Amino acid sequence: MFIKNCWYVAAWDIEVPSEGMLARTLLNEPVLLYRDTQGRVVALEDRCCHRAAPLSLGKKEGDCIRCMYHGMKFDASGTCVEIPGQDTIPPKACVRAYPIVERDRLVWIWMGEPARANADDIADFFWHASPQWRMKPGYLHYQANYQLIVDNLLDFSHLAFVHPTTLGTQSAAELKPTIARDTKGNGMLTISRWYLNDDMPNLHKRVASFDGKVDRWQVYQWSPPALLRMDAGSAPTGTGAPEGTRVPEALQFRHTSIQTPETEATSHYWFCQARNFQLENAAMTEQIFADVVVAFEEDRRMIEGQQKVLTRLPGRTMIPIAADAGLNQARWLLDRMARAEAAADGASA
Amino acid sequence: MFIKNCWYVAAWDIEVPSEGMLARTLLNEPVLLYRDTQGRVVALEDRCCHRAAPLSLGKKEGDCIRCMYHGMKFDASGTCVEIPGQDTIPPKACVRAYPIVERDRLVWIWMGEPARANADDIADFFWHASPQWRMKPGYLHYQANYQLIVDNLLDFSHLAFVHPTTLGTQSAAELKPTIARDTKGNGMLTISRWYLNDDMPNLHKRVASFDGKVDRWQVYQWSPPALLRMDAGSAPTGTGAPEGTRVPEALQFRHTSIQTPETEATSHYWFCQARNFQLENAAMTEQIFADVVVAFEEDRRMIEGQQKVLTRLPGRTMIPIAADAGLNQARWLLDRMARAEAAADGASA
Amino acid sequence: MFIKNCWYVAAWDIEVPSEGMLARTLLNEPVLLYRDTQGRVVALEDRCCHRAAPLSLGKKEGDCIRCMYHGMKFDASGTCVEIPGQDTIPPKACVRAYPIVERDRLVWIWMGEPARANADDIADFFWHASPQWRMKPGYLHYQANYQLIVDNLLDFSHLAFVHPTTLGTQSAAELKPTIARDTKGNGMLTISRWYLNDDMPNLHKRVASFDGKVDRWQVYQWSPPALLRMDAGSAPTGTGAPEGTRVPEALQFRHTSIQTPETEATSHYWFCQARNFQLENAAMTEQIFADVVVAFEEDRRMIEGQQKVLTRLPGRTMIPIAADAGLNQARWLLDRMARAEAAADGASA
Repeated sequence: MFIKNCWYVAAWDIEVPSEGMLARTLLNEPVLLYRDTQGRVVALEDRCCHRAAPLSLGKKEGDCIRCMYHGMKFDASGTCVEIPGQDTIPPKACVRAYPIVERDRLVWIWMGEPARANADDIADFFWHASPQWRMKPGYLHYQANYQLIVDNLLDFSHLAFVHPTTLGTQSAAELKPTIARDTKGNGMLTISRWYLNDDMPNLHKRVASFDGKVDRWQVYQWSPPALLRMDAGSAPTGTGAPEGTRVPEALQFRHTSIQTPETEATSHYWFCQARNFQLENAAMTEQIFADVVVAFEEDRRMIEGQQKVLTRLPGRTMIPIAADAGLNQARWLLDRMARAEAAADGASA
Repeated sequence: MFIKNCWYVAAWDIEVPSEGMLARTLLNEPVLLYRDTQGRVVALEDRCCHRAAPLSLGKKEGDCIRCMYHGMKFDASGTCVEIPGQDTIPPKACVRAYPIVERDRLVWIWMGEPARANADDIADFFWHASPQWRMKPGYLHYQANYQLIVDNLLDFSHLAFVHPTTLGTQSAAELKPTIARDTKGNGMLTISRWYLNDDMPNLHKRVASFDGKVDRWQVYQWSPPALLRMDAGSAPTGTGAPEGTRVPEALQFRHTSIQTPETEATSHYWFCQARNFQLENAAMTEQIFADVVVAFEEDRRMIEGQQKVLTRLPGRTMIPIAADAGLNQARWLLDRMARAEAAADGASA
Repeated sequence: MFIKNCWYVAAWDIEVPSEGMLARTLLNEPVLLYRDTQGRVVALEDRCCHRAAPLSLGKKEGDCIRCMYHGMKFDASGTCVEIPGQDTIPPKACVRAYPIVERDRLVWIWMGEPARANADDIADFFWHASPQWRMKPGYLHYQANYQLIVDNLLDFSHLAFVHPTTLGTQSAAELKPTIARDTKGNGMLTISRWYLNDDMPNLHKRVASFDGKVDRWQVYQWSPPALLRMDAGSAPTGTGAPEGTRVPEALQFRHTSIQTPETEATSHYWFCQARNFQLENAAMTEQIFADVVVAFEEDRRMIEGQQKVLTRLPGRTMIPIAADAGLNQARWLLDRMARAEAAADGASA
């Protein structure tokens, strides 16, 4: 079962074309995404209420979708507004419409009770659209449950092993992160890692305008269900980065990693790596993107391998280690949300 | 579960070669079809009674099949007539043989109690073999339950949407059909649709020897489990077609659409479109066949899409509309047959 | 369920490289095989005890394996000897290690209770490594339960049908074998078949240094779970082969056919055909190997067909015939072992 009452990402803005449609399964539900005549994104259940034909085989007509099996037409609220050959439309003839917010170049969707959807709860990803930052949006499809990806993102100890020549350095395996849990709301974890007087990782070396040792930071903010925002960078050692100063040559990145369950064993994954320097250097944008993809493929190989073992041998014990602190907190938060939702469903039933 | 006590189609005559064999799954049963030395079609369970080896990996010997695993030989009645290295043949050493009737170029099979098989119950498809008609036999394999195909065939309202440029015209969506149910026997539905003073559909235009408005008809006769016979055509408006007159230039077709379940989620589909004009025009035969295939692929795309949604989201409500009249009658008849069979099985058990 | 407390083959020696690793599923368990610095084969559960990552995506370090997800290191006994960033290793941090014996060029593994593993119980396959014999090791992957392969190997009656032009002769279908069951231990079946004054099968003709009729023998020794050793050959008729004399020109073979379940519906299959003549004739080695492969592909086609029918139609009756004597004995022995194991598990639970 999935947590329903929270904002999930459904797509990058550019994945939902101004003409045409995008059919995507989210939390095991087939969803149809399209833009109305004003360009606003609409999300409908991708199943005609008549005989379960996919609306994604249908046709956009103005702000509406017409099922191209028997011609039933649905507006952006999911209400049937036309049944060919029939004057009366039964009140139950509607498909589910999902609350949608388009913000920071992401299409956010609310898969739970619509009345509880509040756009103010959506996390901030300002670097996606800000003129001070530059990024290229990325998407991966994963053959693994989304929580295995969350595990991976909240654990720094794998960097030295999974990514020895990309993201990792030897020190990465040795330094313990600081984890702080937000006591308000649904919980946010802030995991800070500072590498003082450290080597630059290769990813940084390739784009830096300076040499030598650095003070390097990775400050993760993880929010349920699966939103990771990272402030990361390298500044020449001793220029005050830990205290908050960022000298002009400091490499600053904002990283985005977002997952949405597709099914119990597959996931959507949106990511980008924004920077606040050399904004017009398109080759650098491509190089950073390519470097991230190489590193993410290293993760994918391991995580999909993990999913295969878990599918084959479900229910076996896992032995915790100290490096699990981050992922344990995240799993604890997700479990708490799932239990709260199940209890509320039970109470209202 | 499938209805068993009725005649199903197993193949077109030409699908069962005079040499060799045809292995086909029908109602989830593996069936082996071949011709004996007289050319008569034999249907045996495609599973040797010894150790379940497929007889379709065996060899035809005269009227018999020899399993090529251990050499057991079965005659056309399914009785084992030889066990190599063994003099006595146990009486239980037999495989199931299915009653078969070859008629109107179709191979009919009875998958239920053999004693109840009566060849007189087989529906008439005279245009398959008659010298007054010409057709090319077609076969499709469907990734969908056969009832979804029946639904489609008994509903005219989809024509304008699924087949806008092939079978459909705008008027098709607006005209209500007349449905008559046969009160005798296992039920036959006759659905008549007359389009008076209407445009010719493109399929007809391409082969007509006249222009202008037509009186157009589609008279369906649907019989359980999944047999559709259609008398369809276009005659120049006002030449008396609705009253039964068919002027020489009238385009007359007889259409056949027959389904047999392969499994719960896949089906066999045999079809043809016969005509009673320009019999020797082989190019026209091919053109009509190709046009039907194009239209049927339009249906297949929608119906297989429907099956995928139903498989992913089983048990959700369907909202009926007026256009469902035909398919509701068919589903009601099939349910009644299934319940009657289940009750009879219960009583005899 | 599989019988656990017996020696299974995991690999030919050459399948486990001196560098690198071999990941293989045995009895539904993912197993990792590698060689330590002394060249000894190690077998570990291919699942890190931390978060179920496959150790086969890890790295060999000396005699140990390091999981390349979070860096946990396991020695050849499966004990965790290092957790990066952590001083204390929890006592439960270990993966299962399987007893291994490398003998006669085979890697034997014990998947049951390690305390019960006794290397003396391993069957003798001396012709694999003896300087008096020559063979080329073979491996097949089968889409079938291993017992279907055992059935096939213990039944001579299929030779004339499945292998009419390779292993079989007409007389093969007619001659009844003699079966003797060992009354000691877990049971071994000895099935002897003598063809006196018979034609040479094609496989022998191609390599014989003489023509004419032969006395031909096949003496099978089958041991649970799925080990077949065959002493086979052809000697010129009347030269005393049945009494034990083997004239120099006699063709003598030792055949090995061993199966280990991979899953309930797939199997590993190791085989070879050793000979004690023309040892340095490499072309003959290749020819014999190729001939065996051709014959084994004939079996595979039939057995995989059988598995498909059994999967589709589970639980249907099988009619026994006289030729089943061998396979019935084997199935009876395997059932007895499985029942004994289940009873012991119940008693200790």
